[in-house]
Amino acid sequence: MEAAALLFNSKGFHGTSVREIAAKAKMNVSLVSYYFGGKHGLLERLMVEFLEGYIKKLEEAIKSKHENALEKLLDMTYKGLDYLQDKHLRSRFVLREMTLDSMLIREITTTYLMKEKHLYSIVLKMGVQERVFSSVAPQWAFMHIRGMVIMPFLHPQYIREVFHLQPQEQHFMAIYKKEIRKWVTNALAVPEVKEVQRPGKAKNRTAAKEVVM
Amino acid sequence: MEAAALLFNSKGFHGTSVREIAAKAKMNVSLVSYYFGGKHGLLERLMVEFLEGYIKKLEEAIKSKHENALEKLLDMTYKGLDYLQDKHLRSRFVLREMTLDSMLIREITTTYLMKEKHLYSIVLKMGVQERVFSSVAPQWAFMHIRGMVIMPFLHPQYIREVFHLQPQEQHFMAIYKKEIRKWVTNALAVPEVKEVQRPGKAKNRTAAKEVVM
Repeated sequence: MEAAALLFNSKGFHGTSVREIAAKAKMNVSLVSYYFGGKHGLLERLMVEFLEGYIKKLEEAIKSKHENALEKLLDMTYKGLDYLQDKHLRSRFVLREMTLDSMLIREITTTYLMKEKHLYSIVLKMGVQERVFSSVAPQWAFMHIRGMVIMPFLHPQYIREVFHLQPQEQHFMAIYKKEIRKWVTNALAVPEVKEVQRPGKAKNRTAAKEVVM
Repeated sequence: MEAAALLFNSKGFHGTSVREIAAKAKMNVSLVSYYFGGKHGLLERLMVEFLEGYIKKLEEAIKSKHENALEKLLDMTYKGLDYLQDKHLRSRFVLREMTLDSMLIREITTTYLMKEKHLYSIVLKMGVQERVFSSVAPQWAFMHIRGMVIMPFLHPQYIREVFHLQPQEQHFMAIYKKEIRKWVTNALAVPEVKEVQRPGKAKNRTAAKEVVM
């Protein structure tokens, strides 16, 4: 699967043969067919495994304890980002493949994509109930947040070329997470929560409330 | 070029032959080579023409008169969105092609992508000077705004499948623009400007400032 992901990334799915995958993995060609049922089977396995792992991270974040729904939402995005960064080659391939409008891809991915939206909606609605978020249209909020999460992994060459940053590095991720915190807080949170989130205030939340900016 | 864009979209660049393009365009194959210098030439022409048109729209928005930098910034995103929607098949192809990490694509696109970033930076910095935007890191702000602009055209099948919305329809675009206005205003604007932007207040800006929410 690692060999397949590498080859699919550089030569595309259609440009890669089972023979090449087998050679790269130092396996007999017939074993690829035996284990995966050919190239399409490999693609499916690769995507399903990747997406299942991703959804699991989101579920972990939902189950964890958080101060409020904003922190839970941010933890979801962070866990998602870490997962995508950890598997950045595969992320890129899967995300790119998902921009294709093919029946096969749709059949493989739709369940996971619906689940991702559902999990984010839960937390967004939770935040409105907790009065941590101001009136929010969950589906649009989710759409933007998801865009921020996948962007560095779908467009790594863009970030390298135009921003001279390396999306696969920890340094990039640290800044990127902070920026997402800022945007999401500004876009969704009620004023009192925003106040607590200001730079330098996050560590000392009770004191922060007393500060008039 | 229209025939090429259609075929590239459905069969991919590598999966399409010059012969097929010529047949679709009802042209002689040799003319494709004569006018475009083959398939790579066609790809380059298609992308350059598309990106030049896009940059022109951003420049138009910059030159137009606006109440403040926030309105200018939003006008840029709207003009960009309208352009991408108007040419949605081509947008999709070009945006998808740009996710590839190939030398050819990089050579064609980098100038335009740098220019896009530059134009957005001008307006973002203008907003900080005008005290319409609070302290903003222009490059991160641009990165998120750009993500919102291209998303519906790079992922139309996702929006159809998961949100049951049609990104090529005017109705979608009207809502999407409003959502972008909300996000960008919340993320960047100083409190006084945000107040004016609240629903129902946009029409009557002087009165809005007197309202205490």
